[in-house]
Amino acid sequence: MRTVEETCRRISGLDRAAMQRAQDRLDMLTKPRGSLGRLEELAVQFAGILKSLPRECKEKVIFTLAADHGVAVEGVSAYPQEVTGQMVLNFLRGGAAINVLARSVGARVVVVDMGVKAAVAPKSRRLCRRRIAAGTANFLQQPAMSRPQAVQAVAAGIDLVQTEVQRQGISVAAIGEMGIGNTTAASAVVAALTGTSPAAVTGSGTGVDKAGLQRKCVVIETALARHAPDARDAFDVLSKVGGFEIGGMAGIILGAAASRIPVVLDGFIAGAAALIACRLAPAARDFLIAAHCSVEPGHVLVLEKLGTRPLLDLQLRLGEGTGAALALPLLDASVRILNEMASFHTAGVSPAK
Amino acid sequence: MRTVEETCRRISGLDRAAMQRAQDRLDMLTKPRGSLGRLEELAVQFAGILKSLPRECKEKVIFTLAADHGVAVEGVSAYPQEVTGQMVLNFLRGGAAINVLARSVGARVVVVDMGVKAAVAPKSRRLCRRRIAAGTANFLQQPAMSRPQAVQAVAAGIDLVQTEVQRQGISVAAIGEMGIGNTTAASAVVAALTGTSPAAVTGSGTGVDKAGLQRKCVVIETALARHAPDARDAFDVLSKVGGFEIGGMAGIILGAAASRIPVVLDGFIAGAAALIACRLAPAARDFLIAAHCSVEPGHVLVLEKLGTRPLLDLQLRLGEGTGAALALPLLDASVRILNEMASFHTAGVSPAK
Repeated sequence: MRTVEETCRRISGLDRAAMQRAQDRLDMLTKPRGSLGRLEELAVQFAGILKSLPRECKEKVIFTLAADHGVAVEGVSAYPQEVTGQMVLNFLRGGAAINVLARSVGARVVVVDMGVKAAVAPKSRRLCRRRIAAGTANFLQQPAMSRPQAVQAVAAGIDLVQTEVQRQGISVAAIGEMGIGNTTAASAVVAALTGTSPAAVTGSGTGVDKAGLQRKCVVIETALARHAPDARDAFDVLSKVGGFEIGGMAGIILGAAASRIPVVLDGFIAGAAALIACRLAPAARDFLIAAHCSVEPGHVLVLEKLGTRPLLDLQLRLGEGTGAALALPLLDASVRILNEMASFHTAGVSPAK
Repeated sequence: MRTVEETCRRISGLDRAAMQRAQDRLDMLTKPRGSLGRLEELAVQFAGILKSLPRECKEKVIFTLAADHGVAVEGVSAYPQEVTGQMVLNFLRGGAAINVLARSVGARVVVVDMGVKAAVAPKSRRLCRRRIAAGTANFLQQPAMSRPQAVQAVAAGIDLVQTEVQRQGISVAAIGEMGIGNTTAASAVVAALTGTSPAAVTGSGTGVDKAGLQRKCVVIETALARHAPDARDAFDVLSKVGGFEIGGMAGIILGAAASRIPVVLDGFIAGAAALIACRLAPAARDFLIAAHCSVEPGHVLVLEKLGTRPLLDLQLRLGEGTGAALALPLLDASVRILNEMASFHTAGVSPAK
């Protein structure tokens, strides 16, 4: 718990002076003021995070966290539980969507086992092992994990950031996940933290049918009534209805914010993790960039609560960090605009009348 | 006129069989069906355009067309007219936003003088010279150009595509523009072609003030009443209230469609050009990809009429092709997904229950 508390204490908001310098620079460049819209906002936010003008955005790291969910036995997913471990192997071999998109945008993928049921790829050196347990418990029956496990999951995320910072550095972190059943956990977390009815924030995930969607809602409603998680206590919510990868992603956000690194959120489940992180350290919000709005109905609410607006409108519902990967070129572009464009003065272009 | 007519006749719709093959391939890959949303749609559209599965998207060409507008003397822009030529020099030196973003996404920029008032950079080899005249006439007083000039502008665009196809090839074309006063021309074109009131499709462009916006609306209303362009006749509309770069962009769309190359549209002005192209050859619509929705109020209507939906939500209003440039990595990503992802079978991942 000390790691988490100390990390949260190190998080402070954006540096307004650096943001002003970035804005002043943008306003000198050969374009109408503000005409690059949210690309300019990204550059200004990045400056506020770094406390200086960003020079490059080279080290793009996508953390893809995998874990299993005991609640999967309730038939809340279109896929069998063994798919989580199979997909981890696919990540390690480079054949999944996140691998393809990471290559496409020049990012590296850090694959993390936060608690896949069947331990996978025992010999792979490329797998980060942060297993909290062999999947969570079925939260319809009992809390998904103990409170110490919830703290441990968040601390593991913090440690993942520190390890990568020391290894190769991180210009920007992106977070995504894999875990059969994890939209059920994310919906429960979001409903609990925001006091919203489960039906309003629960969708068909990777494609469960109508009956499955109804089961999902009933499972979440029953679990919330049974465990009565305390919305003010992020660890209570995470332990009762969360998941190890959700805790891990919350930890990555906290670790990145403490190290003044921007974090690009993928979809709904990463959003649930962001709500947990911001409950632990509200200033972490300033470090978040929402990549896209997924088709999960609860995602709109999550983005609203986080005060962020998505950059892409692509109707994604895959996870793994795929949406976050697709948004990384925009952050790159914003930094290049700040550094490479000519000013009205140097280019000899007349300013506005 | 023969060039334009022949080009239009060569344009046919998407190849449904190739689209089905792309969809079948996507459905075998290790992801829930359809979960990559509009990225999958892009891959399928691309297959329909190519009549085969796209293998790569390497040759990205951004055409940035510049021209001046006689109507600028009516005080419809926040910038003086000489900025058009100054910005062309900036494009050639690589200091403008479009140069920076093109480098960022691995595209090349083809800078075209379609009719800048003061002839620029007489010695530059990198400038494509397709000058129709030294700017259009002030369409408040007289038609912007003659009908033969309108045809010549569209034919120039067709020729630009052919030249680039022969030189280095084009996997995807993107179109953008530079021309002080050209949101006024674009608003007039859109109002005329769609039968919408000018007030509903006219915005503040690069940042004209409230009085300037009102002047813009009055200028457009007066010009449309005076010239009464025939909405069914694209060349009549283009010649009476259009611009050389608008005609050129329409030609690029037609030329690209005839060569079965997808075209990424930038903002409102490129959208006006697309409406002209689709009036000349309705099947050209299938080749269009809308990059973003700009803050110009008429852009929503244009995208609706074109039946396209923007990929990015970035509040851009710069032009030059900047929004189109930012969307190119998404097309790249869609092609890579089709080619590089593992299938359920090869990865040993269990399919949906």
